[in-house]
Amino acid sequence: MDDDSPYARWEQRTEIPLFLASLVFLAAYAARVLAESMPSFWKDVCWFTMLALWMLFAADYVVRWRLSGQRFPHFARTHFLHTVVVVLPLLRPLRIVPLYDAIQHRQGEPRLSLHARVISYASLSTLLLGFAGALAVYQQERGAPDTTMHSFGDAVWWAAATISTVGYGDITPVTRGGRTVAIGMMAGGLALLGAVTGSFSSWLLQIFSRESDKKPPES
Amino acid sequence: MDDDSPYARWEQRTEIPLFLASLVFLAAYAARVLAESMPSFWKDVCWFTMLALWMLFAADYVVRWRLSGQRFPHFARTHFLHTVVVVLPLLRPLRIVPLYDAIQHRQGEPRLSLHARVISYASLSTLLLGFAGALAVYQQERGAPDTTMHSFGDAVWWAAATISTVGYGDITPVTRGGRTVAIGMMAGGLALLGAVTGSFSSWLLQIFSRESDKKPPES
Amino acid sequence: MDDDSPYARWEQRTEIPLFLASLVFLAAYAARVLAESMPSFWKDVCWFTMLALWMLFAADYVVRWRLSGQRFPHFARTHFLHTVVVVLPLLRPLRIVPLYDAIQHRQGEPRLSLHARVISYASLSTLLLGFAGALAVYQQERGAPDTTMHSFGDAVWWAAATISTVGYGDITPVTRGGRTVAIGMMAGGLALLGAVTGSFSSWLLQIFSRESDKKPPES
Amino acid sequence: MDDDSPYARWEQRTEIPLFLASLVFLAAYAARVLAESMPSFWKDVCWFTMLALWMLFAADYVVRWRLSGQRFPHFARTHFLHTVVVVLPLLRPLRIVPLYDAIQHRQGEPRLSLHARVISYASLSTLLLGFAGALAVYQQERGAPDTTMHSFGDAVWWAAATISTVGYGDITPVTRGGRTVAIGMMAGGLALLGAVTGSFSSWLLQIFSRESDKKPPES
Repeated sequence: MDDDSPYARWEQRTEIPLFLASLVFLAAYAARVLAESMPSFWKDVCWFTMLALWMLFAADYVVRWRLSGQRFPHFARTHFLHTVVVVLPLLRPLRIVPLYDAIQHRQGEPRLSLHARVISYASLSTLLLGFAGALAVYQQERGAPDTTMHSFGDAVWWAAATISTVGYGDITPVTRGGRTVAIGMMAGGLALLGAVTGSFSSWLLQIFSRESDKKPPES
Repeated sequence: MDDDSPYARWEQRTEIPLFLASLVFLAAYAARVLAESMPSFWKDVCWFTMLALWMLFAADYVVRWRLSGQRFPHFARTHFLHTVVVVLPLLRPLRIVPLYDAIQHRQGEPRLSLHARVISYASLSTLLLGFAGALAVYQQERGAPDTTMHSFGDAVWWAAATISTVGYGDITPVTRGGRTVAIGMMAGGLALLGAVTGSFSSWLLQIFSRESDKKPPES
Repeated sequence: MDDDSPYARWEQRTEIPLFLASLVFLAAYAARVLAESMPSFWKDVCWFTMLALWMLFAADYVVRWRLSGQRFPHFARTHFLHTVVVVLPLLRPLRIVPLYDAIQHRQGEPRLSLHARVISYASLSTLLLGFAGALAVYQQERGAPDTTMHSFGDAVWWAAATISTVGYGDITPVTRGGRTVAIGMMAGGLALLGAVTGSFSSWLLQIFSRESDKKPPES
Repeated sequence: MDDDSPYARWEQRTEIPLFLASLVFLAAYAARVLAESMPSFWKDVCWFTMLALWMLFAADYVVRWRLSGQRFPHFARTHFLHTVVVVLPLLRPLRIVPLYDAIQHRQGEPRLSLHARVISYASLSTLLLGFAGALAVYQQERGAPDTTMHSFGDAVWWAAATISTVGYGDITPVTRGGRTVAIGMMAGGLALLGAVTGSFSSWLLQIFSRESDKKPPES
């Protein structure tokens, strides 16, 4: 792909505003779920903000698709991460790593190594997945009569135990909606976790090889 | 193996009918387990359908073995997936991926990459294993006096928590039959999950390398 | 190492008797734990058999060490599996895979591929670890006042949930001895499981590549 | 890096005293947490010792940074393990493996292989993480009104079930502080565990290849 292509120029111009928009989206959702005593006017503001931002993200996706000149299913496959964050806008803040890369690149600094980049991405994804999942499950479970999830702190503890596959079972979702979100979290969390541990393991091997080269021979 | 060999021609002709038969097999088993108030005539129809289809699958396996001209244990080893789906016909719909490959090939489209194929296979296997396991365990547990599995939804939730190795323990099988099926699910699920996460991790590394090449150098 | 060395000849002559002895050892331990109403004479026979066999295994280890002509810590490192099965004789039946290899080799048959061998070893080890661990934990827990492990079936179910890291928590050891054995099982089980899933994942990739080569090109 | 550089000489001279200091640090923390009936004078001695040692570790880190002549974030990245053990001094005894390497090197012995070194590091890290985490969580949970963690033995059992991701849930932290430490343990434990199982799997493959070469051909 040519670096002066319309696609590349679109990406350079929209990266930062869209990243800020994605933070606003996440904040609006969190406010909607956590601030239970919010006046109903502000609740409507939150929903409207989220809807507007989602449409913005969708428009960006369509523009990218058009500019890329590719046929649709092919575009969705080659721009896998874009497709994921359009469907699940709560995960959109993940675009921070390409953003960081782009900024660092503009300053002529060396970029992160491949391992470090995969670990950053996967760790951030895991954190976001956990936070968004805890919000979504808490929203489902809050009203349930026999729930064991009494506060958002409980939801975060449950999310940590679920994504790490520890699964104590002291707190578990009981509603159909909560369990559906939980199954999505398990699937995503396992894949991301595999990526984190796999990359960490390779990184550790690399660090050890490098450290061992620095050891002083006694002669 | 020659592409015009009797084996290859047999495979081309039987792939689609056998795949449809395997869907009927799974549907008959699900209907048998889930439709509790089904009249006993239809229950017999379900069992008979399953038996007939199983014999059909076995016959296909024997024909393939004869056409391949190989000795038996060697054939079972080199056609590992065929052997598995003859023993566990509930998993036979897995043949969908070779089918999709074959159809796409006929149209001259590029096939899926190796990673994508392994991920599709392993994810589909995991879903099927979970669905079939939930059905089988639910069948065992339904009548048990001190069961915690009160509906098929509970069984699906239990299967997801088991295959992902989260294991909350809010719902667990208590009968000997249910626990035996569960141990099979753990063994199969772990192996498949390892294949999914391993391939996903490699795929992510590949995607990141590709994305990083597309970043615009500023000069 | 020379194939006519005293070490190799010792190995060829003792492999089969020692394997049979290890099965007797495991059976004696199982009988001792499971047959609660056994007369005390037979209990003593079991303990004596186990002690005698352990001394036999230790003698074999010392002879091997002497014949190898290596210094001790080096020998223990290069013959890692031998050292493990001397310390934990319940795991000694693992020597079946070298035995199977040796027999197959004598008949001029091709040996198992490396992946298949690692998977066999690790799966068998996992099974043995689970069986021996279930026996050992059951022995500890049987008399405990507030135990949740009421039968050997419960112990097997607990061992499966532990080694697969599912960990429902419906049955857990409560005694100090039972928990100590359980921690050993977790450590060993995790390492072996990683070996199984890693090898299976590689094997699956291999099988898929091979299968894809067999697909008929349409031309 | 030059072997006679001030950095290398500093490392050679301080390695052993700092390792002993880190053992004292861990012992002081353990004494402080476990010896509940300790007179308050000795409790103050423990805290003061820990504070003094922490400042010593920080001073060592600053000296190393200055001697290395690198800019700060770069130094923190290239000396990743040093940075970790300054922030979490409970994990400092991990420096034992470089120490062991250095001593063995001085004696002209061959060093451990890369796999063995990663496994040692990661296993020791896991043990230390588990022990330090059990101490820290026990300190948080001891006073809680509805805790299920009644003794340090319970805390160790909980830590083993957590780091192995088994997660029975028979004992779980209920305080905010205990859960925070637990989430840190899950994150660290998973990464380290991945490194252990990954390296063990590679090591097993290596051992099997080597053993298979030693098998006597019959001819």
